[in-house]
Amino acid sequence: MPRFADITDTLARQAIELPSWAFGNSGTRFKVFSTPGTPRTPEEKIADAAKVHELTGLAPTVALHIPWDTVDDYAALGRHARELGVELGTINSNTFQDEDYKFGSLTHSDARIRQKAIDAHFRCLDIMHATGSTDLKIWLADGTNYPGQDSLRARQDRLAESLATIYERLAPHQRLVLEYKFFEPAFYHTDVPDWGTSLAQVSALGDRALVCLDTGHHAPGTNVEFIVMQLLRLGRLGSFDFNSRFYADDDLIVGAADPFQLFRILHEVVAGGGLAEDSAVRFMLDQCHNIEDKIPGQIRSVLNVQEMTARALLVDHAALEKAQASHDVLAANEVLMDAFQTDVRGELAAWRESRGLPADPMRAYAESGHQRRLAEQRVGGTQAGWGA
Amino acid sequence: MPRFADITDTLARQAIELPSWAFGNSGTRFKVFSTPGTPRTPEEKIADAAKVHELTGLAPTVALHIPWDTVDDYAALGRHARELGVELGTINSNTFQDEDYKFGSLTHSDARIRQKAIDAHFRCLDIMHATGSTDLKIWLADGTNYPGQDSLRARQDRLAESLATIYERLAPHQRLVLEYKFFEPAFYHTDVPDWGTSLAQVSALGDRALVCLDTGHHAPGTNVEFIVMQLLRLGRLGSFDFNSRFYADDDLIVGAADPFQLFRILHEVVAGGGLAEDSAVRFMLDQCHNIEDKIPGQIRSVLNVQEMTARALLVDHAALEKAQASHDVLAANEVLMDAFQTDVRGELAAWRESRGLPADPMRAYAESGHQRRLAEQRVGGTQAGWGA
Amino acid sequence: MPRFADITDTLARQAIELPSWAFGNSGTRFKVFSTPGTPRTPEEKIADAAKVHELTGLAPTVALHIPWDTVDDYAALGRHARELGVELGTINSNTFQDEDYKFGSLTHSDARIRQKAIDAHFRCLDIMHATGSTDLKIWLADGTNYPGQDSLRARQDRLAESLATIYERLAPHQRLVLEYKFFEPAFYHTDVPDWGTSLAQVSALGDRALVCLDTGHHAPGTNVEFIVMQLLRLGRLGSFDFNSRFYADDDLIVGAADPFQLFRILHEVVAGGGLAEDSAVRFMLDQCHNIEDKIPGQIRSVLNVQEMTARALLVDHAALEKAQASHDVLAANEVLMDAFQTDVRGELAAWRESRGLPADPMRAYAESGHQRRLAEQRVGGTQAGWGA
Amino acid sequence: MPRFADITDTLARQAIELPSWAFGNSGTRFKVFSTPGTPRTPEEKIADAAKVHELTGLAPTVALHIPWDTVDDYAALGRHARELGVELGTINSNTFQDEDYKFGSLTHSDARIRQKAIDAHFRCLDIMHATGSTDLKIWLADGTNYPGQDSLRARQDRLAESLATIYERLAPHQRLVLEYKFFEPAFYHTDVPDWGTSLAQVSALGDRALVCLDTGHHAPGTNVEFIVMQLLRLGRLGSFDFNSRFYADDDLIVGAADPFQLFRILHEVVAGGGLAEDSAVRFMLDQCHNIEDKIPGQIRSVLNVQEMTARALLVDHAALEKAQASHDVLAANEVLMDAFQTDVRGELAAWRESRGLPADPMRAYAESGHQRRLAEQRVGGTQAGWGA
Repeated sequence: MPRFADITDTLARQAIELPSWAFGNSGTRFKVFSTPGTPRTPEEKIADAAKVHELTGLAPTVALHIPWDTVDDYAALGRHARELGVELGTINSNTFQDEDYKFGSLTHSDARIRQKAIDAHFRCLDIMHATGSTDLKIWLADGTNYPGQDSLRARQDRLAESLATIYERLAPHQRLVLEYKFFEPAFYHTDVPDWGTSLAQVSALGDRALVCLDTGHHAPGTNVEFIVMQLLRLGRLGSFDFNSRFYADDDLIVGAADPFQLFRILHEVVAGGGLAEDSAVRFMLDQCHNIEDKIPGQIRSVLNVQEMTARALLVDHAALEKAQASHDVLAANEVLMDAFQTDVRGELAAWRESRGLPADPMRAYAESGHQRRLAEQRVGGTQAGWGA
Repeated sequence: MPRFADITDTLARQAIELPSWAFGNSGTRFKVFSTPGTPRTPEEKIADAAKVHELTGLAPTVALHIPWDTVDDYAALGRHARELGVELGTINSNTFQDEDYKFGSLTHSDARIRQKAIDAHFRCLDIMHATGSTDLKIWLADGTNYPGQDSLRARQDRLAESLATIYERLAPHQRLVLEYKFFEPAFYHTDVPDWGTSLAQVSALGDRALVCLDTGHHAPGTNVEFIVMQLLRLGRLGSFDFNSRFYADDDLIVGAADPFQLFRILHEVVAGGGLAEDSAVRFMLDQCHNIEDKIPGQIRSVLNVQEMTARALLVDHAALEKAQASHDVLAANEVLMDAFQTDVRGELAAWRESRGLPADPMRAYAESGHQRRLAEQRVGGTQAGWGA
Repeated sequence: MPRFADITDTLARQAIELPSWAFGNSGTRFKVFSTPGTPRTPEEKIADAAKVHELTGLAPTVALHIPWDTVDDYAALGRHARELGVELGTINSNTFQDEDYKFGSLTHSDARIRQKAIDAHFRCLDIMHATGSTDLKIWLADGTNYPGQDSLRARQDRLAESLATIYERLAPHQRLVLEYKFFEPAFYHTDVPDWGTSLAQVSALGDRALVCLDTGHHAPGTNVEFIVMQLLRLGRLGSFDFNSRFYADDDLIVGAADPFQLFRILHEVVAGGGLAEDSAVRFMLDQCHNIEDKIPGQIRSVLNVQEMTARALLVDHAALEKAQASHDVLAANEVLMDAFQTDVRGELAAWRESRGLPADPMRAYAESGHQRRLAEQRVGGTQAGWGA
Repeated sequence: MPRFADITDTLARQAIELPSWAFGNSGTRFKVFSTPGTPRTPEEKIADAAKVHELTGLAPTVALHIPWDTVDDYAALGRHARELGVELGTINSNTFQDEDYKFGSLTHSDARIRQKAIDAHFRCLDIMHATGSTDLKIWLADGTNYPGQDSLRARQDRLAESLATIYERLAPHQRLVLEYKFFEPAFYHTDVPDWGTSLAQVSALGDRALVCLDTGHHAPGTNVEFIVMQLLRLGRLGSFDFNSRFYADDDLIVGAADPFQLFRILHEVVAGGGLAEDSAVRFMLDQCHNIEDKIPGQIRSVLNVQEMTARALLVDHAALEKAQASHDVLAANEVLMDAFQTDVRGELAAWRESRGLPADPMRAYAESGHQRRLAEQRVGGTQAGWGA
């Protein structure tokens, strides 16, 4: 098994983008509970993200959601971020909250509404120029609730056309990543339900169109790490949206529901070169903190990814290949499990300290009194949320 | 196979309670779309429900959700309903939208909040006295999102105690029905996740505590009609919440996603005496109309139940038992399928007309111009919704 | 809505291939029950398939499974089939029952075993030349049971190489169809788990490599008709394996578990041109009759497909498009449901009679005494089965 | 957090019963692969089980499956076991492999076949008297494949009657445990599909009838530890059948697919008193080793249970309750995760050595040459299997 010292170079490179919306209130269709200290503005969300990075060294960029994070001056927002020690990252388009999008956006049968949705993406590209972001991430809420409601095929063709129009506007250094989702908010069909559809759509666009894999967007029982392997093999894995789930798209803290699955995913990332220096894969969180505090929720999340990455990096690949070659099923499985069961928390804590970070970022945050101060300072205004 | 004339007595008895909240706006955590003509008040919701009954003869009662349907004078609300041709029915308690309930209601570890939730149910009982309602329906959003968050066992015990306190207050003619739900809004565990738990809880209370079966609240692949059979066999099936789903608790129009499942459920209801005159089983809808018009959505729903009930009543039980007894699998299945495949729409239309109802209630509603008038009249105010 | 007379040309063209193995005994890992009259030889299986075609006019070809249907003289077997009124169809390879394939076949890490599996496919191609079959269908049992057991990526690359070697040997008029399956008999991962993987593999081969969609090989909740639409759109839908399921790959009679899903699938087939005269899509059954009689089980199956095809052909596409264009969700759904609920059995019976077929093939078979005669004649020998 | 020394008393008491059938060949409906050295007789299976106990100290008893383990002299078989250091444990009835049981056993509509199945259980009780076993475990393969095939209700009533007849014959020190299973080998319905049905049936029998929970017998997404908690709370958890699964009833090595789930289950066992000295809960494995060697497969399994038990015992309950009481979701979850992430392997190894056991039983077995000797010795005869 590799020693911990063998893996720190890779760990030091690890970067996990935080979603600005994780710091706002979220919930279910039944209730969105609020939390004292929740940010009211994009600037406050970025400040919270910067706090996570300050304590962990793991989260150097923040993703924006447009129009949730609309501001007048994106260059100023970028400077605000840099002053706090982070950069602005992926721009996420949102074409699901305008009444016009009730029956679709990029797939809508009405050309006027499709153009409105395309224009919304053009605005995202403009923002990317201002912020220096390279990735435009598209998750569509498009779909139908009832069989017959619309033509599945016509929607797919319209989607292809809309995406092509957006893709043409990309600058050479920019990428489009297309997320897929099994269901919700549409219940009969979603227009990009699986990796196969996302791949078919982005392959038709060009080399800078890639697939975004959200770990919670699959049917029960799906082997997610297989998809990770396949997309890496095909050169089309653009980014991860990390979170975890027990049932549906629960958007729980990554690693909370099935830590072993997270380990297996990261094992395939390592095996497929996804952590190499020249890797095209970006890692980000896409989570909700419905009942827990948000900043420590995000700290916990990036630590979970870091801990599982460390374990995945500790897999003894030589021993693994030897056991695999001899079809010793139990031995091969044991090599993998040895890494998974290794408690890396102590070594990670020491390594963090050696880099000027708190050994235990969760405790450091709890003891800092920061959460209490935020609750005291952030009174009045409207707490950020999804505005559903 | 029975003739249509043989089943009309039973069909004439059929009553499907409508949920007041189906007429308000609903949606997902991503967006609640609005519809012109949506009611602003409990009175307008009841008027819409009465319209459904007027056109179908199937929906003589309306269920209320407290506090969504809070009014000053429930007796007056009941008179309003009766003037429109319907009665007030089941009272549904809601202990999931107050900030105090963030970590539970009847299961909360804080006795003060448990009492608050119990008091909310006492208020429901008071309303039942004013409205003449007999059923108190309890669906709990209680649960946890993360392993370890709370003690599963302690919550179960607290639930038992809270329910017992509520049950004691029931008048002799009143019933408590406890709904179960697989997941959502809690994602790690819900405190009443399955029929076994609901049965265990209501059995501990007494004879007037029964189980409510919502057809969308099960794990993938669950044989729902088996549960219907079992609860009828055990004498504990209190009521149905009808809806349909493809994936999770989609709350789509009943019969829309899997009409054959609805048929099988109603076949078990018939076989188990659930449609008999002295049956204790009540039928109601619990649906969302996120994108379709609400009044015709409810008309479609009660018609779907009626059509499938008619088919279920057409099963040739003598032929079925004969084929079953001889283990002729294909013949037995064919007897069931013969009833399922019988197109009852023509005979139902004629029968409706014979009773002074429109032959095609969907068309009658569409041609009446009622929806347009509502959209014109109901301007201003705040459209009803879940207020999540 | 189209009249029945409008759709009979298409119905007359319908051909559903029968699997020879459906006539042998099958079961579960717990028990394979036998049935009197079960065939002992490939010739007897073909005779049973011919009986299904004789009574339904729907099943002009029979698929073989090699080595289950190994004979000395395939040309003679083909003549035997033609004498009985049917033709030999798809050749299915079987590389999962030799001890050598314990850890894989086309994906095995040992080149010798991969070559053995490739050779098995070469033999299938030889048989195709003798029988005149055009389709080689590959379903792989390959996969692993435990994380770490083998490299997912290396197996995928070996699969690509093996398939390429087989594909090179295809004659110009022959096709390779690659089936995918979610799980079973491998439990951790299967090497072709989803349509995306099958598509990626066949796309790398060439135009005559296509995807086979088995309706039971998906995760719970998967929208199968969406995949049908997508594969038709991408020009890569080669064939269907029809069956139905409640939970896993139950291999029940097609249309038995969810007739509405079968309707929706056939609606997408119609919409995507899959029933057009020049369609490249082939239709076959892949089922087990564990407890019911096999010949009537197959008759029931092809009738189910025919009945649902008729309903799908009755969809009023003009009305559907009109409702879709105006976003009238309920009206669009109703157009689809109108076709689904139309009882086509009477008109189909009359049309069958007009073509010299029994009006009710199930009854005709039951009354023919054929099953009893088979049970009397086929004594001794070893009943055909999977030999697991 | 408790120290390791605090938990060794409980660990020393841990006993996990091994299933004799785990040492025979098993597989899927597609293929049963063989392994050199597989036992040919019940005596050899017991010898293999004794080897597992010898190396781990965890498996003092062996469960038998009747008729798979039928012998002439059960008292002699018991002596054979004791000489090897183990005892005979639970007797598992098998009423699913006789042709008579094609349509059911204890639920069959034919009283003659029901009596045959009841008699089979009486024989199991006779064997229990000879072996000194206290538990009769009933898992039924009964169910139907097609809607309408039989009356769900009548089968349930017949099951109740059959079970009552068997229960009456129990000696005062004997127990009946009834296992439930979601699906397979029946696909439309199983007669004991869920814990609610099992509980309803055993509750009608008496105090010595309990529920058996097989960890693989649930729908996707089911919170199994909740059921553990509930059955413990209701005093009806009789025994566990441990295994793991990714999709269906995969019967993989316990802890292999979702180690965190196993931890959560054992946490509820600890919390509910299931490991207390007077606990009524018995623990056993029910697994298949389709492709891996069986003896080390069983060693790995009991070690997995031991390791997760140790982690569950290390949960700091005081800290957990404190965090729960203050609704600090992240802190409460962290207390649980701290125990889960603690690498107990080193301390367990040292503790094993202190008790005269090998530090690493897997390595000890591999290095012993035992497997090779078995392969050399056990030639000829028929390897044990399910005989499906």
